[in-house]
Amino acid sequence: ADPAVLAEAAAHQDRLTKPRGSLGVLEEVAVRLAGSAGVSPPPMPVPAALAIFAADHGVYVRGVSPWPQEVTGQMVANFLAGGAVANAFAAQMGASVTVVDVGVAGDLPPGDGLLVRKVARGTADLSRGPAMTREQVVAALETGIAVAADLLAAGARCLVAGDMGIANTTASAALICAYCDADPEGATGRGTGIDDETHTHKIDIVREALAVNRSLCEAGPLDTLRAVGGLEHAAIAGFILKAAASRVPVILDGVIAGAAALAAAALAPAAVDHCVAGHRSAEPGHRLALDHLGLRPLVDLELRLGEGTGALLAHPLVCAAVRVMQDVATFDAAGVTDKEA
Amino acid sequence: ADPAVLAEAAAHQDRLTKPRGSLGVLEEVAVRLAGSAGVSPPPMPVPAALAIFAADHGVYVRGVSPWPQEVTGQMVANFLAGGAVANAFAAQMGASVTVVDVGVAGDLPPGDGLLVRKVARGTADLSRGPAMTREQVVAALETGIAVAADLLAAGARCLVAGDMGIANTTASAALICAYCDADPEGATGRGTGIDDETHTHKIDIVREALAVNRSLCEAGPLDTLRAVGGLEHAAIAGFILKAAASRVPVILDGVIAGAAALAAAALAPAAVDHCVAGHRSAEPGHRLALDHLGLRPLVDLELRLGEGTGALLAHPLVCAAVRVMQDVATFDAAGVTDKEA
Repeated sequence: ADPAVLAEAAAHQDRLTKPRGSLGVLEEVAVRLAGSAGVSPPPMPVPAALAIFAADHGVYVRGVSPWPQEVTGQMVANFLAGGAVANAFAAQMGASVTVVDVGVAGDLPPGDGLLVRKVARGTADLSRGPAMTREQVVAALETGIAVAADLLAAGARCLVAGDMGIANTTASAALICAYCDADPEGATGRGTGIDDETHTHKIDIVREALAVNRSLCEAGPLDTLRAVGGLEHAAIAGFILKAAASRVPVILDGVIAGAAALAAAALAPAAVDHCVAGHRSAEPGHRLALDHLGLRPLVDLELRLGEGTGALLAHPLVCAAVRVMQDVATFDAAGVTDKEA
Repeated sequence: ADPAVLAEAAAHQDRLTKPRGSLGVLEEVAVRLAGSAGVSPPPMPVPAALAIFAADHGVYVRGVSPWPQEVTGQMVANFLAGGAVANAFAAQMGASVTVVDVGVAGDLPPGDGLLVRKVARGTADLSRGPAMTREQVVAALETGIAVAADLLAAGARCLVAGDMGIANTTASAALICAYCDADPEGATGRGTGIDDETHTHKIDIVREALAVNRSLCEAGPLDTLRAVGGLEHAAIAGFILKAAASRVPVILDGVIAGAAALAAAALAPAAVDHCVAGHRSAEPGHRLALDHLGLRPLVDLELRLGEGTGALLAHPLVCAAVRVMQDVATFDAAGVTDKEA
């Protein structure tokens, strides 16, 4: 982010007809977006484009989710038919929806809005060894970069990162532990809803994954990602890196995007300047990830759905923050008396 | 709210293609709106209409605000010129803006979007006696009812209550203390930004107001409102009551609308079923008011601006919650396998 632009944006906030600081977190968001774009006021982050990266996880076989694995593909079909919550929220916010099969286990029927970019039919079981090969993690990263590039070329001025994949909160917890040096017990949640017994088992699986992949996780951020991540985590990390390189904001969804953002930040720390934390999910690891990234979430409503839903809810708030910078009158221009010093 | 409709709405939520409960607070919002409207799914709360009720406060003379009193009228002119944050947010959310002079001290030049409904040129000083006469409080309530009725007749399907008035957080704190039986120290905040000394003074003023008006506050909810409220509080209470009677949701803004909602709820408890808490402001009394009303705020970003800004931010979230009920496919219809029991 450009320090001169950050200072200019903060000074502009203080001239607007409102008590200074009275827009709370939204003032910081607008200033950060100015720094990201390199211009104050920043451009409106519209249109927004949601990309849902779908992939399966080898760790599914360890019994970490109560959902059948075929639900990943079934939900892709639901996205394409417009029947999922992400579709409803995207319609509400005026965002386009692109679904990317970066690693779904089953074959998906082609459909409008589906990009088949299958790097593998799901990852290997991260509790028994690396989830991905070096070639796979690079291919998935490049897929995310390419998807972002295409959406930007088509006119998107705000990217929204979503995910779909049964068992992906397990890989997210492992990534968060690895990147934040956190304990699996504090970082592993109940995903879409599991009982106490399965939760305990899931924590053990994350612990096993970290133990079996220890040397790889210590080798560097890309190896960490391939050791305990998912294909959609790698793709979302690439998506974030491309948004950052293009100085376009990317709104992060919940724990999957948060874990992917940790990977992106480990690879290129400045990428965080271009990220907005859309919401805080109910997953405990998400809080750890956001704290590590230094991001404050805009929406905090106990969502735990994924798909980009929490990020989409934040989009109008981000737009509102930018619109203030563009539209609101200054004390001088409006003839409003300023507060006594 | 209709219990059968509430049950039907909750059952419908559980059939949709998402893990049960995964939309967190938004599931409750959608169910409440169904109960409010008496139909599931509830209608989309669009278009939204913001009414900003502007008024001055006699307690201003006690030095509770660092802003000159003429800022109330200056900000009304700013609203009419489209230069305030409320205008920017309303434009973002597609809401109309109506400004109601229910008691500004100065004369306002007529303008498009301004309704001059001056009940008095500000209230009397509530720290020395009742802020309003019985006739005044009734006239202000009726003003709010009439404004809501006109907006509904013009097609609004969601009302948004905003406020403008220098010193109105002082009256709000007094109302919250009176309706919630709270102590002024815990209920009185820094409004738009005051130093420690003024804050301590403001707490004392609220304490004086409650003492001098004790018998009136004990006489009943309408007398409480006239004793320590503002003309905009009374108008917003009427606005809420009319929305409730019409089964149209009303999104509350911050501490001023929260205090007014306490008055509305004291007059007609069922009115709360039709209220959505748009946000939680930085004012400590607002938390007390929301807890008393049993409402959970949707946006919590340390806003302390008023004007309806926090409520406007919540509007797309409410729309998203309703759209889920209307648009999202069921497990059966989408061919998505449900979670194992």
